[in-house]
Amino acid sequence: MKKTQRVGAIIKILSDCPNRTFGLKYFCDAFGAAKSSISEDLKTVKSIFSEMDMGFIETTPGAGGGVKMVPYISDEAIKELQAEICTRLSDNTRLLGGGFLYTSDVMFDPMLVRRVATVFTRKFQNKNADFIATIETKGIPVAVMTAFLLNLPLVVIRRESKVSEGSTVSINYFSGSYDRIQKMSIAKRAIVPGSKAIIIDDFMRGGGSVKGISEILSEFDVSIAATGIVMTNIEPQKKKIEDYISLFYLDSVDEDQKTIKVLPNNQIF
Amino acid sequence: MKKTQRVGAIIKILSDCPNRTFGLKYFCDAFGAAKSSISEDLKTVKSIFSEMDMGFIETTPGAGGGVKMVPYISDEAIKELQAEICTRLSDNTRLLGGGFLYTSDVMFDPMLVRRVATVFTRKFQNKNADFIATIETKGIPVAVMTAFLLNLPLVVIRRESKVSEGSTVSINYFSGSYDRIQKMSIAKRAIVPGSKAIIIDDFMRGGGSVKGISEILSEFDVSIAATGIVMTNIEPQKKKIEDYISLFYLDSVDEDQKTIKVLPNNQIF
Repeated sequence: MKKTQRVGAIIKILSDCPNRTFGLKYFCDAFGAAKSSISEDLKTVKSIFSEMDMGFIETTPGAGGGVKMVPYISDEAIKELQAEICTRLSDNTRLLGGGFLYTSDVMFDPMLVRRVATVFTRKFQNKNADFIATIETKGIPVAVMTAFLLNLPLVVIRRESKVSEGSTVSINYFSGSYDRIQKMSIAKRAIVPGSKAIIIDDFMRGGGSVKGISEILSEFDVSIAATGIVMTNIEPQKKKIEDYISLFYLDSVDEDQKTIKVLPNNQIF
Repeated sequence: MKKTQRVGAIIKILSDCPNRTFGLKYFCDAFGAAKSSISEDLKTVKSIFSEMDMGFIETTPGAGGGVKMVPYISDEAIKELQAEICTRLSDNTRLLGGGFLYTSDVMFDPMLVRRVATVFTRKFQNKNADFIATIETKGIPVAVMTAFLLNLPLVVIRRESKVSEGSTVSINYFSGSYDRIQKMSIAKRAIVPGSKAIIIDDFMRGGGSVKGISEILSEFDVSIAATGIVMTNIEPQKKKIEDYISLFYLDSVDEDQKTIKVLPNNQIF
């Protein structure tokens, strides 16, 4: 294999497995090349990434060391993404009555949630979390993409305890969005006690659901490293949780005027 | 930018956006390079992919044409994946009673479902489907990854009709797994009538749930192009649906002997 081929192959392998460390030996074996050649290739790969704004290459020296690709999204690309989603979400045919918006097409758009997940990855890359937690259903796509990009396991909290979950822990919490007591449930074996979670969800109004997630996780002595929300309702201004990052704010929904105002979070960078 | 850099950057861009066609102009603008240089670069990219077994490059000629990366997984890599998941699923601490197995950690493992999704992508690449359909909850991660790799939208069928879904169509169906009538519900605006779906789900016993999905979709004149299931119970041998691809078969669960027998589907290639 020629250098250009090896460099191309390394980029493909690292891009498909974000945040996963590969030892030099992996590439030596894969391409039948000497360590010195692979070292040179990796320098080239690193310089390509440094000029691209699409991720960067981190090298860990030593025997157990290696190289990994850390995803990245530039400020400019975040702004583009925000503008695109704002336009889509402001479409007044989304109005459903009761102040609800139809957002499933956005939250289930694989390429869009991947880009949103890259924003969360950029913000949470150094939080040293052990897993991503979300609650079914609409947050799952963005949570699974974030987990993929951070190379972390995903835990999905269920609304009901299912027979296929085995022994579970459940709590009741008040959901302001639905104005009633809701239940959430988690399989005991899904959690490593004492570990650190990042919470990802699609939407937050008062924060009851996210607070519920942190409460149910605290039953396992799990601490919350960070919280990422795709869209947050501006009201109530006082949320039940404090630390979170939201990509958008739902400013107002006017059913009479048929207008929806969605604002990008300009402080996210 | 040098050729090696451009080739590397093109590979990164195409790998991050599978099955998405990029015109030559996109790369000319991105790198400030002439069409002739980019043409040469793309030949190199194509030859790198052709030697790698990790996807291939498809070129569409003409004015609206361009280049895209089609994901691929080799027979050997599928066998490795099957062996790995079989080992994980055969662990007898997964036994939950009632013949149920705990599988959430596998179905929510982002890297594992991405590899499973690559198998479905390889099988369904040429089905000309318009969207991926799944039913909540455990099939969502593999469905979103398949949708991402095929560059298709995802539609998630809900168990209950939610206020945030707007106007819905619902059906009742008999679930053999749960031995009772279940409900499924779909937002009317989620579906383009007359389109073509690929159904993806995590587990199938009698096929009641998959048949339910195809029935609810037929309310919109949607036809089923293909069905991909991660694991299928061997019994009952006669399923309610005929055409499907399963990566594994759950052969037997013996609660007294505490054994689980999971078999790879050797006919999947």
